[in-house]
Amino acid sequence: MAVCEILCVGTELLLGDILNTNEQFLSKGLAQLGISVLHRSSVGDNPVRLAQELKAALGRSDIVITSGGLGPTADDLTKEVCCEVMGFELAEDRELSERIRGYFKARGIHMPESNLKQAMLPVGGTVFRNNHGTAPGAALERDGKCVIFLPGPPAELSPMFDESVRGFLKKYSDGTIVSHTVNIVGMGESIVAEKVEDMFDRENPTVAPYDKSGEVQLRITAKAATQAEADRLCAPVIREICDRLGDVVYGTDMNKIEERVVALLRERGKKIATAESCTAGTLPKRLTDIPGSSEVFECGIVSYSNDIKMKLLGVSPETLDTYGAVSEQTAREMALGAKRVSGADIAISTTGLAGPGGDGVLPGGLSFVAVTDGDRVFVEKIVTGHENDREYNRHVTATRALNLARLMLEEKIK
Amino acid sequence: MAVCEILCVGTELLLGDILNTNEQFLSKGLAQLGISVLHRSSVGDNPVRLAQELKAALGRSDIVITSGGLGPTADDLTKEVCCEVMGFELAEDRELSERIRGYFKARGIHMPESNLKQAMLPVGGTVFRNNHGTAPGAALERDGKCVIFLPGPPAELSPMFDESVRGFLKKYSDGTIVSHTVNIVGMGESIVAEKVEDMFDRENPTVAPYDKSGEVQLRITAKAATQAEADRLCAPVIREICDRLGDVVYGTDMNKIEERVVALLRERGKKIATAESCTAGTLPKRLTDIPGSSEVFECGIVSYSNDIKMKLLGVSPETLDTYGAVSEQTAREMALGAKRVSGADIAISTTGLAGPGGDGVLPGGLSFVAVTDGDRVFVEKIVTGHENDREYNRHVTATRALNLARLMLEEKIK
Repeated sequence: MAVCEILCVGTELLLGDILNTNEQFLSKGLAQLGISVLHRSSVGDNPVRLAQELKAALGRSDIVITSGGLGPTADDLTKEVCCEVMGFELAEDRELSERIRGYFKARGIHMPESNLKQAMLPVGGTVFRNNHGTAPGAALERDGKCVIFLPGPPAELSPMFDESVRGFLKKYSDGTIVSHTVNIVGMGESIVAEKVEDMFDRENPTVAPYDKSGEVQLRITAKAATQAEADRLCAPVIREICDRLGDVVYGTDMNKIEERVVALLRERGKKIATAESCTAGTLPKRLTDIPGSSEVFECGIVSYSNDIKMKLLGVSPETLDTYGAVSEQTAREMALGAKRVSGADIAISTTGLAGPGGDGVLPGGLSFVAVTDGDRVFVEKIVTGHENDREYNRHVTATRALNLARLMLEEKIK
Repeated sequence: MAVCEILCVGTELLLGDILNTNEQFLSKGLAQLGISVLHRSSVGDNPVRLAQELKAALGRSDIVITSGGLGPTADDLTKEVCCEVMGFELAEDRELSERIRGYFKARGIHMPESNLKQAMLPVGGTVFRNNHGTAPGAALERDGKCVIFLPGPPAELSPMFDESVRGFLKKYSDGTIVSHTVNIVGMGESIVAEKVEDMFDRENPTVAPYDKSGEVQLRITAKAATQAEADRLCAPVIREICDRLGDVVYGTDMNKIEERVVALLRERGKKIATAESCTAGTLPKRLTDIPGSSEVFECGIVSYSNDIKMKLLGVSPETLDTYGAVSEQTAREMALGAKRVSGADIAISTTGLAGPGGDGVLPGGLSFVAVTDGDRVFVEKIVTGHENDREYNRHVTATRALNLARLMLEEKIK
């Protein structure tokens, strides 16, 4: 299996002025081609360090893809360094120098001579045309090693990779890598891990857990000659995981619990309403982030004060007096209130202490979430254990409320 | 000047499953400390390659910061590799193992033994407490070299860097780089740039514009021996910018317009309510993200359907019939309705088409926002020009509604 390394060039990267999205884009593309990436690195616009890193990379890997440093200015030296290290000459490409002149002429602006640097191309290299800018890319092959240089701007690199580099790399590819996820809410990462621990030693497909603040993902990754074959390798593993974990699995190949909730509501032709205290707007925001949610989301009430809880949601003063705003009873009455006021088919509610810190009696990170369809009400108590992490507590509380809606819609709580 | 290298660990990075934002965050933070970053790299969860890369990095740099691979599972090996390479022993920290046990006990869930791996700490290292997760970080110093390992999740790494690592690294820093921002809503980046264009050639402090979707920031950055000296260099430039731009400046050294709105409400002892259609929860979410907002935020109503606009907010059926839900008139009645229902001192509203796409008549990205104190109502029409960018349109519309609240509280609209 061919091994590839990604080497990004640019002082602006090392200063943190820009986020490097090329690495992820190239990594994904190479994984799809079944080419392994074992190492990535970034250096500044410094030819000595670039040459050092390029030689080190060629010592470890079959293919090195660089991005950046192909522009017209004096500090753009990636092409020159790649050619020197691989022993390729540069020569002017007349057609390209005319094209660059034409590019400026068409825009009626003066062309600095330095731009013609971009018309120097490696003799004997495979050139990749740039349809979204002026600097072409190229591949240099010698002695079983391959260096590919690509432009830095993502708007030039991405189409060049898709249009030219992907096809060029096919000869280095032996198969494809496919990933699927199993999506879980309501069970912590380490408990999930314990239940499927024996699978973590598998080789093809591999199984690995990811913690996504309030959710857990198990990622199943297979390598095979074709996508269909990779899918066939994954399928029994996914089934086995779902069997072992049961109702905490809300789906596969999803990103967020709200995707599942909106899909269920649409399938069943039902509408939802929300009543929130501590999560304050998170539920409507997350539900309406999902395309198609306007058909199923009816209304949301953020009742931060007790007054509003009574006035808009009809929570009784006795409940608030006796049990407090952060209680099972209040969560229950908030959900029932939202259902009644909105006329929606189901309603969910949240009340809790998002932190930082508690209120002197109850700890930060304690919350109650409820769901009702008018007949039945279910309440869940949540203790996140993150006393001070307001953002986390709000997110997890909302996730668990959405999960209750999911369980009710799936008829999994009775 | 100290040289630092960043080494990120995680197979999920090399597969392109996640975007590496830690590199940029750390690069920025190190630049602010006056510490140079000349090299960054990423390897997978493979102890041999990690050790190789760590040794190579220590050959080039004074400080190496790793991120990732501190979790409870068997493939999390960064701490172990760092300690081995630097010659540090690991020993159980009883207090920490109790804390981890307590974390699970408080949530009433069984703790898998693997979690105790996180309680093993380097003897003689400087430990950084994790206030947002269970795995601590640490610095290992020996023979003039320093290795720092930090957790991978950005929500743990960022606060740990700000709370502990920044202070620890001060001794490696020579001089300080200080940045201040001028925060702007209601004027586009290119117009702001035009008004202060002559300042972009300055050397110390430098002035640079940043577009923050719906807001513009001007960042003023000075380098000096001390913070106070750097501040003295920035002050006259900041004053000059504020004078030139006028009322669109809502503050300095803020991050978001909602910080200013919550501060103004608290200063004046006033409460706010919100009524939303297209922004669906964004306003309460953003207001209550600000600590102290519970004193000033009264309630929020997300009225997605026309029914709810009439029923809960008292928008008249004639208004909806004649002008439609996305209109100046509906925005006005929604704000008045929220004020009336909540009893708050001021209310803001949003109604619009977030997209993707329009409704056949009106374009995506069109919205109306309103503010009222009961006596007066102001409405603003917004056209973002981003027909299909739902997230952007919702964010910008909410920003402009918050800005109207700011202007009314500052008595800048009459």
